[in-house]
Amino acid sequence: MTIKLIGYSSSPSTLRVIATLNELGVTDYSLAPPENFSDLKSPEFLAEKNPFGKIPVLIDDGFTIYESRPIARYIVAKYQGKYNKKILIPDDIQKAALVDQYASAESCYYDPPLATIIFQELFKGLGGGGGPDAELVNTQLEKIAKILDIYERILEGKQFLTGSDISLADIFHYPTTAYTAKKHKDLYESRPNVKRWIDNIAKSEGVKKTFEDYPVPQF
Amino acid sequence: MTIKLIGYSSSPSTLRVIATLNELGVTDYSLAPPENFSDLKSPEFLAEKNPFGKIPVLIDDGFTIYESRPIARYIVAKYQGKYNKKILIPDDIQKAALVDQYASAESCYYDPPLATIIFQELFKGLGGGGGPDAELVNTQLEKIAKILDIYERILEGKQFLTGSDISLADIFHYPTTAYTAKKHKDLYESRPNVKRWIDNIAKSEGVKKTFEDYPVPQF
Ligand SMILES: N[C@@H](CCC(=O)N[C@@H](CS)C(=O)NCC(=O)O)C(=O)O
Ligand SMILES: N[C@@H](CCC(=O)N[C@@H](CS)C(=O)NCC(=O)O)C(=O)O
Repeated sequence: MTIKLIGYSSSPSTLRVIATLNELGVTDYSLAPPENFSDLKSPEFLAEKNPFGKIPVLIDDGFTIYESRPIARYIVAKYQGKYNKKILIPDDIQKAALVDQYASAESCYYDPPLATIIFQELFKGLGGGGGPDAELVNTQLEKIAKILDIYERILEGKQFLTGSDISLADIFHYPTTAYTAKKHKDLYESRPNVKRWIDNIAKSEGVKKTFEDYPVPQF
Repeated sequence: MTIKLIGYSSSPSTLRVIATLNELGVTDYSLAPPENFSDLKSPEFLAEKNPFGKIPVLIDDGFTIYESRPIARYIVAKYQGKYNKKILIPDDIQKAALVDQYASAESCYYDPPLATIIFQELFKGLGGGGGPDAELVNTQLEKIAKILDIYERILEGKQFLTGSDISLADIFHYPTTAYTAKKHKDLYESRPNVKRWIDNIAKSEGVKKTFEDYPVPQF
């Protein structure tokens, strides 16, 4: 049965899920973008898809789940090892806990400034919301610079966050990074460990395919 | 071997971990509060405990992990079923995914406004940072009110987020709620489903013990 992914290929959260599907070699899914952005706030969407009125939402064999990171974990729990040998969450309890630790850092510290920057500089204009709030963008650029300094230290001598292999935590970081780096290259170019890490993720087969299929717009 | 939990009993994030330990009947742990808050930014703490300079940090048999929610998940993975029969993350993939979904809602939508309110109204003053920023507190109170309206709908006819049993997702919500409700009771009293849910969590044995041992200060 085909997995249905409700979302847009231009949404970093949706791309987080698509990259996970591609990394694990799951091909039997279809992307179903809502016709209008306002559909996300319709009584039907709120009641049946996601009460928070956001995408992505995944429907797999009658089971509905929202929030990109839990969706990705669900895909790992159900499909890891089924179509290829890629391991995004290891069985070992301590190794899995470290994937989780870095996934939490992504969600708590890394994502918030980038999500704001991307919204202000790219999506706000598309929605007819006028230009970016320059002061807000600057505050968030300062915040992510400090966070990236911490990542630079964490990534010393490493290929990926948890060592030599890509994990779900790395994938979680990639879509917002790819969007932000399109406009603010220096954030990444100026930090060699971070730069190496991002390049490593970009080269991983499923991530590579995702961003070939859905290239990041220039903005 | 004794588990060492670096943190403060007055920190909602630390209480998230303690409540998880207590729910699962893990008693062999000791709380190790840093002497000074500034210790969290020492080169030694950043290098060996947590590069983000935050508590809680858990050390279990030589394994170090930070971020309260991954710590709690690690405790579940390692100790669930060992000392009692409480199930905080079910084995079933779909049921576990829903725990995850609500845990993500906690971290993305529920925690940020409450963490700001608690910091402004309680901790800022203690740290000598002056009084709360009233405008910021108000914005966050408006935000959490909207989020709680969504929870009121989600919790219709339910005892807990995922149904009739408590899960890790419920526990994640509790510490910030207990702190906020001390000052802003109306947020919870005015929403009957939310009120019932919070009362249910408060009555669960491990949560009850946690907040008897470490009562929420009046502020
Ligand atoms: N925490 C959510 C965030 C999802 C999210 O913010 N999605 C955006 C598009 S990238 C959205 O649906 N925005 C609509 C809205 O918030 O009104 C997740 O990871 O799935
Ligand atoms: N996302 C972190 C948040 C931890 C956190 O913010 N801890 C606070 C105390 S509740 C802290 O260490 N603050 C010190 C600081 O941020 O400088 C977690 O869940 O563990």
